[in-house]
Amino acid sequence: MEANTVRRIIEEWAIGVRARDIDAVLRRHAPELLMFDVVGPLRLQGLAAYRRTWVEQFFPWHGGTGRFELVDLKMSAGADVAFATALLECAGTEDGKKVAFTLRLTIGLEKRNGEWIIVHEHHSQPLDFDAARIGAGSS
Amino acid sequence: MEANTVRRIIEEWAIGVRARDIDAVLRRHAPELLMFDVVGPLRLQGLAAYRRTWVEQFFPWHGGTGRFELVDLKMSAGADVAFATALLECAGTEDGKKVAFTLRLTIGLEKRNGEWIIVHEHHSQPLDFDAARIGAGSS
Repeated sequence: MEANTVRRIIEEWAIGVRARDIDAVLRRHAPELLMFDVVGPLRLQGLAAYRRTWVEQFFPWHGGTGRFELVDLKMSAGADVAFATALLECAGTEDGKKVAFTLRLTIGLEKRNGEWIIVHEHHSQPLDFDAARIGAGSS
Repeated sequence: MEANTVRRIIEEWAIGVRARDIDAVLRRHAPELLMFDVVGPLRLQGLAAYRRTWVEQFFPWHGGTGRFELVDLKMSAGADVAFATALLECAGTEDGKKVAFTLRLTIGLEKRNGEWIIVHEHHSQPLDFDAARIGAGSS
């Protein structure tokens, strides 16, 4: 039954994103949330920083016509710790043109005082080898 | 105590990577492991594909003088499900030059028949905004 509860929490989070409803997006997150986002910086910590990624970056890009669809959502849910994996089909608008890509998503949760809370999110896009080389810093 | 066990498994995995000892790297992984790797494809499934990322890609790049260091390794470990987060300081050699970068790592584990098993890994590098735009497919 824990897996069903965790699945519903993640699906409601995605519905919140699609509705650009920041309160719904943040409803189940821990104050100290650790976020590895698609774009830099390397990591973000805490709800205020997490909130900004949605309000300042994703919602304007996503607009009213974008996509944010979980694909192959899979759960490993124990009694008090759980994680979930999925692909994320995203679409938004850049310079008036519609763009789309697929992300990888891992979400980590803990049960605290009887409630499942999201404590970690890892969103990413894979690099191709050339991009990886450009991204690497020489030393 | 579960957190200590999970921490040791992940640290031994990293020691295996540094030693380029593929048997040590694979020792604690589930046959159906789901891997989101730094470079494409979007996802890999199963031990054979996971093995190839190390033997064919990472070990030659890493060489005998590379780095692979876990930083800020943090654990959420329940009775039967756990996940861990860390940064990964990596260095290797490309075209005879040493290159270094920092990755984000999330690892998911399940306890099966009394043993902790790694069922999911998510390794990534954040994109900057320009790279993200180059990476997006137009439609």
